[in-house]
Amino acid sequence: MNAYVQLEARFRRISALDDAARLLGWDMQVNMPPGGADARAEQMTAMKLTIREKVTDPAVADLLAEAETGQGALDDWQRANLREMRRRVVHATAVPADLVEASTRATSKCHMAWREARPKSDFALVRKELEEVVRLTRQGAEARAAATGLSPYEALMELYEPGARTDRIDAIFAELARELPPMVDAVLERQASQPAPHEPEGPFPIEAQRRLGERFMRTLGFDFHHGRLDETLHPFCSGVPEDMRVTSRWDDSHFFDGLMAVLHETGHALYEMGRPKDWRHQPVGNARGMAMHESQSLLMEMQACRSREFLGFAAPILAEEFGGSGPAWHPENVYRLYTRVARSLIRVDADEVTYPLHVILRYRLERAMLAGDLAVADLPGAFRAAMTSLVGIAPPDDRHGCLQDIHWYSGSIGYFPTYTLGAAAAAQLFAAARKAKPEIPDALAKGDFAPLLAWLRESVHSKGSSKMTDEILAEATGKPLDTAAFMTHLKARYLAN
Amino acid sequence: MNAYVQLEARFRRISALDDAARLLGWDMQVNMPPGGADARAEQMTAMKLTIREKVTDPAVADLLAEAETGQGALDDWQRANLREMRRRVVHATAVPADLVEASTRATSKCHMAWREARPKSDFALVRKELEEVVRLTRQGAEARAAATGLSPYEALMELYEPGARTDRIDAIFAELARELPPMVDAVLERQASQPAPHEPEGPFPIEAQRRLGERFMRTLGFDFHHGRLDETLHPFCSGVPEDMRVTSRWDDSHFFDGLMAVLHETGHALYEMGRPKDWRHQPVGNARGMAMHESQSLLMEMQACRSREFLGFAAPILAEEFGGSGPAWHPENVYRLYTRVARSLIRVDADEVTYPLHVILRYRLERAMLAGDLAVADLPGAFRAAMTSLVGIAPPDDRHGCLQDIHWYSGSIGYFPTYTLGAAAAAQLFAAARKAKPEIPDALAKGDFAPLLAWLRESVHSKGSSKMTDEILAEATGKPLDTAAFMTHLKARYLAN
Repeated sequence: MNAYVQLEARFRRISALDDAARLLGWDMQVNMPPGGADARAEQMTAMKLTIREKVTDPAVADLLAEAETGQGALDDWQRANLREMRRRVVHATAVPADLVEASTRATSKCHMAWREARPKSDFALVRKELEEVVRLTRQGAEARAAATGLSPYEALMELYEPGARTDRIDAIFAELARELPPMVDAVLERQASQPAPHEPEGPFPIEAQRRLGERFMRTLGFDFHHGRLDETLHPFCSGVPEDMRVTSRWDDSHFFDGLMAVLHETGHALYEMGRPKDWRHQPVGNARGMAMHESQSLLMEMQACRSREFLGFAAPILAEEFGGSGPAWHPENVYRLYTRVARSLIRVDADEVTYPLHVILRYRLERAMLAGDLAVADLPGAFRAAMTSLVGIAPPDDRHGCLQDIHWYSGSIGYFPTYTLGAAAAAQLFAAARKAKPEIPDALAKGDFAPLLAWLRESVHSKGSSKMTDEILAEATGKPLDTAAFMTHLKARYLAN
Repeated sequence: MNAYVQLEARFRRISALDDAARLLGWDMQVNMPPGGADARAEQMTAMKLTIREKVTDPAVADLLAEAETGQGALDDWQRANLREMRRRVVHATAVPADLVEASTRATSKCHMAWREARPKSDFALVRKELEEVVRLTRQGAEARAAATGLSPYEALMELYEPGARTDRIDAIFAELARELPPMVDAVLERQASQPAPHEPEGPFPIEAQRRLGERFMRTLGFDFHHGRLDETLHPFCSGVPEDMRVTSRWDDSHFFDGLMAVLHETGHALYEMGRPKDWRHQPVGNARGMAMHESQSLLMEMQACRSREFLGFAAPILAEEFGGSGPAWHPENVYRLYTRVARSLIRVDADEVTYPLHVILRYRLERAMLAGDLAVADLPGAFRAAMTSLVGIAPPDDRHGCLQDIHWYSGSIGYFPTYTLGAAAAAQLFAAARKAKPEIPDALAKGDFAPLLAWLRESVHSKGSSKMTDEILAEATGKPLDTAAFMTHLKARYLAN
């Protein structure tokens, strides 16, 4: 027991340092003046290497071995905590410090080159830097693979969604790649057969948008005693359960996207805020992974907030706040606007029907790049070809093609699948929630998220990392992740009534 | 040489962690929602203990001993760097980790109690907590004293102003305590004999005040590519040279204090921004100490920005920004408003003539508390008595008395003297600057700070911690710190023309 207790103390310290490091990242995106970038990079590297030292301390390995030997005396949560500690130690130890430093440097360089290349739509400006990032990421992936017995790509996915395996993802994505393109055709045909929805007329003052964002955050259950809302170029959610930082962007000619981004990020924040308090500073108390995280943001955004029920509640509030009247502000019109489908170029702006296709093509391309089957130099062409065949639209340039996302240029390979796994999990969880609590739709129609949030708190948030994603889903919904609920949801929303 | 090079690498990492920790403190005051306090305290403690581990690592002590033995091969800056490393290691090693943790906990508890006690003006709510803080601070001071050969109070002062010694401070403060009270009488008498200055009439929109603050920051030489201005309850300056964070407060019924706070904090920021780039991440590249720091803020605020020259430049800009006209906006009237003297209760609002008296009484009281000659229970009465005898005004309650400052309640004993040492140094440096560059007053009258800033960069900022405060002052002004220039300045501004 003693070894386990010592491990808890050490990981509590590590957790506090992780939390501190996260704030540096938040501030970098929200507040930092441009001239602070190099100094901040040095601070973040120092934090990363210091945390790594603590995780890879040989004393931790010794304590882990001892605690694992005696784990019969531990309870389920403690054993799960040991498993999560072990996962982290294995990964941190697998990659040598000099490779961590080289990757950090290369990634930082590539990220800066990408920031120049994207607006200029000039892939050549970042090609060499991306080659270096892919090379070093491959080295790291191979080191992680050797330490875990997984494939290099799976070993990278472990960083974002522990337990994710390519055979499962291949099966799920194959099904979606087969079923979604004809569904997109059908939805677009049906949409075209109806009169176009009315567009609300702006301008929509930023202050009103911010106020609305805060109001709806409260509606969803966000507690501003423990968090805040700020503005950034790209919406995101960061922070710690006691102090969640949500960001969005506002544009006074258009409020739809900024508002929905707030609700999406609030879904992430609520997951963090609902983590098990008793395990707050232990690995087992962390959110399960990025697929589960995305399930929580998409459940709020796509399942709950784009529903007829909620938009019926929200539309009059929008009209009132913006002083709007007429058919554009009618609930049914707002619902139609918020459920428009289009073949579009930019993943983050895509609707929920076409979104998985954007993800699937990235999954295929990044696996091929990591395996060395796709040269970085060939990425722009491969991206265009995949867009054309999967989404049915060809990017006119690389800015709207392979340069649009930050992920690869910041060294994140293995992350993309979590978006679509999350979308499927969101539908599966929402269906189970409505089955368990049939009052949920009526409550949403009154702006009452309490029944839904209570179910999520109990079924997902409070589980932390005590179980794997599929186990949590099986307990909450009766089966591990599949696409049935997602497809049912899409058909009901986009092809029925 | 090898040992020295290894030390530089280790202290570079420590410097980056120091910088990261500082951002946590900035965010706590600028952004953090109230519910985030406990989690932030845990993060800051984790940072503090982690940094302490790195500084007290036995390998650092070994390397230091080796490098010091071979320091004949080093240049002046490298030797000074070793001296600063040694100072930090000695202090960090002197206080055992459990005392650091106990102090951190007690201080955090006392700080929270103080936040409740101050608005209620109820010292009893914080007495026990302050007793514990003083007890632990004394223990720490004694440990530092044993390790340094200094007295416990001097050992604490080393944390804020290395090299500060009580015999020097006693002499300086005795002179000020003798000369200032009759001077205050004379100034008040002279002030009363003149018609009162006109008060500009508000409201003064916050946005205009913020804009003015940024405009004058630029005038002083602040570069917004490397910093920002935010709003907090108490103005302060934090950050790193590449990313300075200045804060102020604004009140739409009154713009005088908020604007001068901006200029004061900008003085601090310019010092940090001017630190020697080659030594940016080494102890020798840090600002010299808090007395020198305060000299830079007070030089900008009191010497330069409250001068007739600068206010002649600023008054029309103020009038234009606020749409003001009439005698209240006349340069001479603005100058008279910005140089009003009054016996007042609150140190941070005090004018520069009475300010040292506020500091001297705190210096006396905190030395007595640390030595055990003044019981914490007797502090309120002792504070009232000292205010009455030194400043000539009695606080009606503890909120306006011993509860007004955060310092003691957050464990800072030994800090107060730096305010007045800084005020004296500011006068001495400004006199030397004008002597070296006689064009400075005319330049200030045109809003041109370049000659003054260039002199400060060369004479103070670029020295970092390569020399001690008195050495830097002696090289810049011809002699170590004394009160001559400060008294000359006060007489010229408040009793002549």
